Amino acid sequence: MPTPEFMQAAVHAYVRALNVADLDAIVALYADDAVLEDPVGSVPQRGLADIRAFFARSLRLPLQVELEGQIRAVADEVAFAFSVSFEIKGQRTTIRPIDVFRFNEAGRIVQMRAFFGPSDITTG
Amino acid sequence: MPTPEFMQAAVHAYVRALNVADLDAIVALYADDAVLEDPVGSVPQRGLADIRAFFARSLRLPLQVELEGQIRAVADEVAFAFSVSFEIKGQRTTIRPIDVFRFNEAGRIVQMRAFFGPSDITTG
Repeated sequence: MPTPEFMQAAVHAYVRALNVADLDAIVALYADDAVLEDPVGSVPQRGLADIRAFFARSLRLPLQVELEGQIRAVADEVAFAFSVSFEIKGQRTTIRPIDVFRFNEAGRIVQMRAFFGPSDITTG
Repeated sequence: MPTPEFMQAAVHAYVRALNVADLDAIVALYADDAVLEDPVGSVPQRGLADIRAFFARSLRLPLQVELEGQIRAVADEVAFAFSVSFEIKGQRTTIRPIDVFRFNEAGRIVQMRAFFGPSDITTG
């Protein structure tokens, strides 16, 4: 099982990669058979091809991503709160999700679930 | 499916009940067949009898519980960060979990998972 420190480092790498729009670095964190549900309740993205396409869409606009509070790491999972903001025609939108990642033995993310609803999205 | 507002109100009721050590109010939030995993990776408590016993143990000491940030509510789930602190022989311990609840159609919690590890526990 990956250590808490390993999983926390993976989250920091994820945040860094989102901030610099490094699609390869993001996808490299995921296992071949990973399932991504962002937001929770949406149709999951299954496998690296779909996950790459998902993040390619997400990165069309420059994103500013910041962790909020510590990364909770336990067993083979992490949960963490963060903010992601972007600007469209001078208007800034900020989303504040809580993400949960589950890791496999090889230290890759096998499941990602993003919790946010309408009340976690602010504009202006 | 319960509304985001309903699920957020349930979390507030949970926090309130923990703060006043109201075991009945806590257990009333759970479905008969609920599964509680606190912390993630521990042996789950299954069903109301085990869940009541779990919270009876948790409430042996007075708890101070505070939400940290908003309650993310989406589909039939919520995720939220909070702190819980208690005092043993004049020494205060604070734990900062992220909890995830899943609700059934009747608005009861059917799954509860608490994410925290050693680095989310501080003393002194």
